[in-house]
Amino acid sequence: MTKKISLLGATGSIGTQTLDILKLHQDHFVLEAISIGKNLTLGLEIIHTFLPKIVSVIDKDSCDYLRANVPSQVKVVYGEEGILEVAAENDADVLVNAVMGSVGLKPTLKAIEAGKTIAIANKETLVTAGHIVMSEAKKYDVSILPVDSEHSAIFQCLQGQDKKRLERIILTASGGSFRDKTRKELIGVTVEDALKHPNWTMGAKITIDSATMMNKGLEVIEAHHLFDMPYEKIDVVLHKESIVHSLVEFEDTSMIAQLGSPDMRVPIQYALTYPERLALPISKRLNLMEIGMLHFAPVSFERYRCLQFAYEAGKIGGTMTTVLNAANEEAVQLFLLKRIQFLEIEDLIEKALENHSPISNPDLETIIDVDRQTRSFIRSLV
Amino acid sequence: MTKKISLLGATGSIGTQTLDILKLHQDHFVLEAISIGKNLTLGLEIIHTFLPKIVSVIDKDSCDYLRANVPSQVKVVYGEEGILEVAAENDADVLVNAVMGSVGLKPTLKAIEAGKTIAIANKETLVTAGHIVMSEAKKYDVSILPVDSEHSAIFQCLQGQDKKRLERIILTASGGSFRDKTRKELIGVTVEDALKHPNWTMGAKITIDSATMMNKGLEVIEAHHLFDMPYEKIDVVLHKESIVHSLVEFEDTSMIAQLGSPDMRVPIQYALTYPERLALPISKRLNLMEIGMLHFAPVSFERYRCLQFAYEAGKIGGTMTTVLNAANEEAVQLFLLKRIQFLEIEDLIEKALENHSPISNPDLETIIDVDRQTRSFIRSLV
Repeated sequence: MTKKISLLGATGSIGTQTLDILKLHQDHFVLEAISIGKNLTLGLEIIHTFLPKIVSVIDKDSCDYLRANVPSQVKVVYGEEGILEVAAENDADVLVNAVMGSVGLKPTLKAIEAGKTIAIANKETLVTAGHIVMSEAKKYDVSILPVDSEHSAIFQCLQGQDKKRLERIILTASGGSFRDKTRKELIGVTVEDALKHPNWTMGAKITIDSATMMNKGLEVIEAHHLFDMPYEKIDVVLHKESIVHSLVEFEDTSMIAQLGSPDMRVPIQYALTYPERLALPISKRLNLMEIGMLHFAPVSFERYRCLQFAYEAGKIGGTMTTVLNAANEEAVQLFLLKRIQFLEIEDLIEKALENHSPISNPDLETIIDVDRQTRSFIRSLV
Repeated sequence: MTKKISLLGATGSIGTQTLDILKLHQDHFVLEAISIGKNLTLGLEIIHTFLPKIVSVIDKDSCDYLRANVPSQVKVVYGEEGILEVAAENDADVLVNAVMGSVGLKPTLKAIEAGKTIAIANKETLVTAGHIVMSEAKKYDVSILPVDSEHSAIFQCLQGQDKKRLERIILTASGGSFRDKTRKELIGVTVEDALKHPNWTMGAKITIDSATMMNKGLEVIEAHHLFDMPYEKIDVVLHKESIVHSLVEFEDTSMIAQLGSPDMRVPIQYALTYPERLALPISKRLNLMEIGMLHFAPVSFERYRCLQFAYEAGKIGGTMTTVLNAANEEAVQLFLLKRIQFLEIEDLIEKALENHSPISNPDLETIIDVDRQTRSFIRSLV
């Protein structure tokens, strides 16, 4: 039986790797609908290869352009309405949410209401509104399957295990592109340096998030929601090889870990084939003997202030994580535009968190409001 | 609900650690029956603590002695009949087979016929007659739960996983007490040196088996039977810390590993609580940051000849693994008695394997015959 897939963010890093998987297993998957970003050339290529029924683009101009250039059976839509149609109003069984940022929230909620399984690569959705997403998923009895390598690792490790005896989740962190630098050495680092991740090839935003370790902070919050774990039971350990993708510990002291070469196609495919697996010959098999050594070290909250911000915001909860995420998105954007220094990312986020009076158990509207306010606040500082 | 446990080999290393678990979780387990070895003092202590209904000892003298010294409600039996009564003829739900050597075979088969779940720490049973044990287990629909740390690790890693996509099993090996010695340096090593295992505190026979790496060889054969894997898909990797207890690899390149401090009580308890877990506060939690590094290296068949013998015997199959095991048991015994040198263990096993014409798919009688012949053959050489 084939699974029907809809894919938000088809032209991004996770999106194209998802398409690699679909191409590899054409007898298992059909691409039903996609949303694409600014890269219309790549978008057209994808459309001609997969012929999805629905394609959503950012604006009317892109929509008009595509309509003139794709086969007539492909429906082209745009804007927020368009993305919601791709997420929810079609026959897909699984929605792969691979867009970047909190823009992924509404489509995810719509897809949950439509009863679709969610494969979530968009961590900002869970960070900003995890309590809503998880309670809606419970209400509509849909599965939220993690695509992030760390959360996929934890998810894989928890299969068939006695979850009520789960003692601790341990997320591994590579340390990002600046892991061998002291804070002093971070003064004046460039965007180009920050984008050189030692182990993973990813989009720009997540690569910067790795360098600040906000990425791990967002993952801690994501893990809290996905696995219903208190923050006190979520640890982060530095593991520079990015081979052990994360671990779980049970009350009997037994730990289960998931390992592999750093290749996002593995967790992507697992989310698509779950609870089964399929072969993935395009991925490199791990040879522990070749690697020889795996390193583990503590993470310093002084060195990686964003990680501390994330724990603090997570523990406060409510709209605090919305502020954390929105401030970070804006600050990273400003850094990528070379309008602020690397270390100012942290300063801006800290100011936004200090400036905010958290609201408990916020509804979607409140979250969207706080998200918007935070972004203007950050922009007002620069 | 409490589980009723019968325990073969209560006074041995695995036996006493099993009793630690039962003592810790008295609301979950009841000790129904035990067999004990030569240590009657410890046996009496166990009987007075747990008051099992049936106790089996080696011979009539021990039986008479115990009868005079235990409460009247404890039934004391002896010999082969006695051990079979402990294994099968009682109300136990689970048989923990923690005796050493092929003596564990018959009681295991009887317990399977009686429909009991088998927690197997006695690897020789599976090495010498794995095909019979596993087919009987299938016939009577009973579970064979591994207690060995490596096989428990694999078993834990396979829970909830898509077993038809299992690509490879990787057993980790500490390298034993002589892992830093060359073959030349093994000439003239003493029994006392051989008994100093770097990571695990275990019985004498298994500690010598670790030094020759026959232990890992036996585990390869055990894994072949327990997990129905061809020998080509079972690897051994040197891992000197004994922290990663073993790993599995799936066709999508994802690997799952089980980790923990070297403590046999963890796999013992898992076999008893499976598929659930219980807390085990007496075991030391693993701190990867404290450990800092995990090492992995290839194993040399030239350095560890017994490992090669095991793969070869396993691939030939039939009575060849019976010869491997019986020859090893005898040779290790002779080494412990200081009648042969350490390296002669390998030589004797090699001669026994060369001398044997394997019989395919042997029945229990044939296995017992070949076992006996091999032992006399080995003794005739010294």
